[in-house]
Amino acid sequence: MVRSKKKFDIIIEGGTLLTMVEGEEPTHNARVIISGDRIEAVSDRQNTPLPETGELINAEGAIILPGLINSHGHSPMTLFRGMADDLPLKSWLFEHIFPAEAKHINPDTVYWASLLACLEMIASGTTTSVDGYFLADAIVKAADKAGMRALVAQGVIDFPAPGVPDPKKNVDVALAFMERWIDLSDLITPGLFCHSPLTCAEKTLQQAHEISTRFDSPLQIHLSETREELTEIRKRTGLRPVFYLDDLGLLHSNVIAAHAIHLNEEEIDLLAERHVKIAHCPESNMKLGCGVAAIGRMLEKGVTVGLGTDGCASNNNLDLFAEMDTAAKLAKVANLDPTLLDARTVLKMATIGGARVIGLEDNIGTIQAGKKADIIIVDANTPHMTPMYNPYSQLVYSATGGDVRDVIINGKIVYRERRFTTLDSEEIMNEVKSLSREIGR
Amino acid sequence: MVRSKKKFDIIIEGGTLLTMVEGEEPTHNARVIISGDRIEAVSDRQNTPLPETGELINAEGAIILPGLINSHGHSPMTLFRGMADDLPLKSWLFEHIFPAEAKHINPDTVYWASLLACLEMIASGTTTSVDGYFLADAIVKAADKAGMRALVAQGVIDFPAPGVPDPKKNVDVALAFMERWIDLSDLITPGLFCHSPLTCAEKTLQQAHEISTRFDSPLQIHLSETREELTEIRKRTGLRPVFYLDDLGLLHSNVIAAHAIHLNEEEIDLLAERHVKIAHCPESNMKLGCGVAAIGRMLEKGVTVGLGTDGCASNNNLDLFAEMDTAAKLAKVANLDPTLLDARTVLKMATIGGARVIGLEDNIGTIQAGKKADIIIVDANTPHMTPMYNPYSQLVYSATGGDVRDVIINGKIVYRERRFTTLDSEEIMNEVKSLSREIGR
Repeated sequence: MVRSKKKFDIIIEGGTLLTMVEGEEPTHNARVIISGDRIEAVSDRQNTPLPETGELINAEGAIILPGLINSHGHSPMTLFRGMADDLPLKSWLFEHIFPAEAKHINPDTVYWASLLACLEMIASGTTTSVDGYFLADAIVKAADKAGMRALVAQGVIDFPAPGVPDPKKNVDVALAFMERWIDLSDLITPGLFCHSPLTCAEKTLQQAHEISTRFDSPLQIHLSETREELTEIRKRTGLRPVFYLDDLGLLHSNVIAAHAIHLNEEEIDLLAERHVKIAHCPESNMKLGCGVAAIGRMLEKGVTVGLGTDGCASNNNLDLFAEMDTAAKLAKVANLDPTLLDARTVLKMATIGGARVIGLEDNIGTIQAGKKADIIIVDANTPHMTPMYNPYSQLVYSATGGDVRDVIINGKIVYRERRFTTLDSEEIMNEVKSLSREIGR
Repeated sequence: MVRSKKKFDIIIEGGTLLTMVEGEEPTHNARVIISGDRIEAVSDRQNTPLPETGELINAEGAIILPGLINSHGHSPMTLFRGMADDLPLKSWLFEHIFPAEAKHINPDTVYWASLLACLEMIASGTTTSVDGYFLADAIVKAADKAGMRALVAQGVIDFPAPGVPDPKKNVDVALAFMERWIDLSDLITPGLFCHSPLTCAEKTLQQAHEISTRFDSPLQIHLSETREELTEIRKRTGLRPVFYLDDLGLLHSNVIAAHAIHLNEEEIDLLAERHVKIAHCPESNMKLGCGVAAIGRMLEKGVTVGLGTDGCASNNNLDLFAEMDTAAKLAKVANLDPTLLDARTVLKMATIGGARVIGLEDNIGTIQAGKKADIIIVDANTPHMTPMYNPYSQLVYSATGGDVRDVIINGKIVYRERRFTTLDSEEIMNEVKSLSREIGR
């Protein structure tokens, strides 16, 4: 084959390409050319000469798609994966998770547990994560080392928290965090994460909001996750949570609300009107017995929805393929309507939907010339992926994260033939295993 | 190390052993010894000498557990995986599945698609399947070739069906099927599968029941899967489906009812009283928008429940690990109670529960000396399985079928380090891909 003289870095050839661009159908035998951190061209393999340079990735028998975007998570909680399951919500939080956090969360544990989360996310095709936790500097360092794209948010709560023993200092700590990382890199955006309308006072919410706006960074918040939150906020304020946040000026297009379960029709309308972004976390919502978010209604009303795994203590993995499958099936059974949240819609939520959630839709979420090269390749040459009539169905209903073969983030191959190129997986797993032996005592 | 002189066939060493025997806790660093088709001994690795012979399987860093039992499926439907999703139930069945069956189901397609199902089940840790479909001879041949343990049932329906163009002959065909295979092998039990109370007349149900009883083989039936079935049976008979079947004498301990969604309290009581076995198929029930079976209530009342994937056209995989995760989470969210169907309960459903469903609890479902050697080994040395506080949680909430590393059925290694020993996976996948190109036209 004659190779063209133009020089590129990575050439992906063959397989089934899903660009996830609106209106574009799957194409077979495509070629995706990457130059530096960007997609240079998406072309037909037959009609264009193979460039002279560039690492060739053969994707025959595989599916090429945009990297998945995890719209809501708490990376360090991999440390507590499976530590306390199947418990009443209050006992889970107050007798297990909060005490474990108080005792074991420090910059070192956050760093290693976040690296473990990066391993898991990369290996299951997630190229961008939206993270919120305390001691978030260590999450930034982990994501930076891994080469992941991430919105990493420092938690804000009006209780003593890891790294912020005095809640009066929570906003100062958050501001310092923003200042420290705002210019770090193209890949990592610092942000703030208000724990919930229940655990942050009005003033705290407004101050966090003010800082987020100043840095033009998305503000994350848990919203209407539990019935208790709804009841308590109404008792305190006379308002349902969405209207309460609106009164505080907190509903706008740079706010990411996670969970959004206990909403009435007016609240959904208001979220739509204010262009608030929703991070849907079906597996966590199911496992904690919180309820079913009305995602079908939200999409009908034009709300932007992304998909999130939530933290590992309430899932217990970071596999967005499992999350897509569950999102589709949960909507269908909750509404007794098998047509709701079809496979393509759900895959959009996990790609371009997630990109819109964090305001990066011009740079990621689809495979198009000019966009950042965040691309994954999923092996389809396995029994459970055979035969293949519809690649969207296959990815959502048949695949798991374990089918991901190669991962490219920002033009860099971070996972190749199921091997990590930026991280030492044995070292990281051993460190976390060692930490877990202390915790398990 | 001195090896004892006693001769065995397979020795599994190290790792975390879950015997699934009631009251037994996980043990670490165990040794499981297999002789012929049976488990010879389960012992502590430290206190017993390593036998002199036997293939050694090192399970360090892995979890050893009984092979999973898929209590309800239709293997040949792998052929239609992802062919028609997200459609209204009637359109899915009448415009897609039934026409595709009429056109493409024949002994050859059933054989290859069933082999594909065997590949997929083995690779995801299923050692026993409960199968019901038409042209079931070809399923028998596939399961026999694969070396799987299976209850393979010939479908009975009062409509023209693949291989039974004249419904008047459905019972004769079923009887001949039973006679042909009843003495085949220790691994395969032939059975009958009445499609549903809606699609089989009273006389058909009773004749099928009579044949099943004569051969002492479980009788499978879809029961209360859709609201339409409930409405229609009440219209026809004045009774709810469970009471209708009871009137016909069809409710007893050798009946496996799949789905069992639209039941009232009295129906659950009657199923418990009659010791009817239930095959719970949460993913299919969700994907088709059928509803949520009250498994928590059934278990409370002492009903035996196994877990099934249903056919690939309504799931779309045969991964019981995903099914366990979904079963646990669905029960929790449907009842807003995170304590329901804890991880261990769900793992029991997929092992010893499934064994009870098919009446094989004395032979399979737990790892105990004297039982048949149906054992799987799950790799736990991966990011998403790290750290491990609770192996039950890990298997149900973190693992996927892709984590299965080794599979032993009836003392024979059928999958070793993720390679099939009884089947040629490339050949089977290529055959089904080739068939699917015809179907996709």
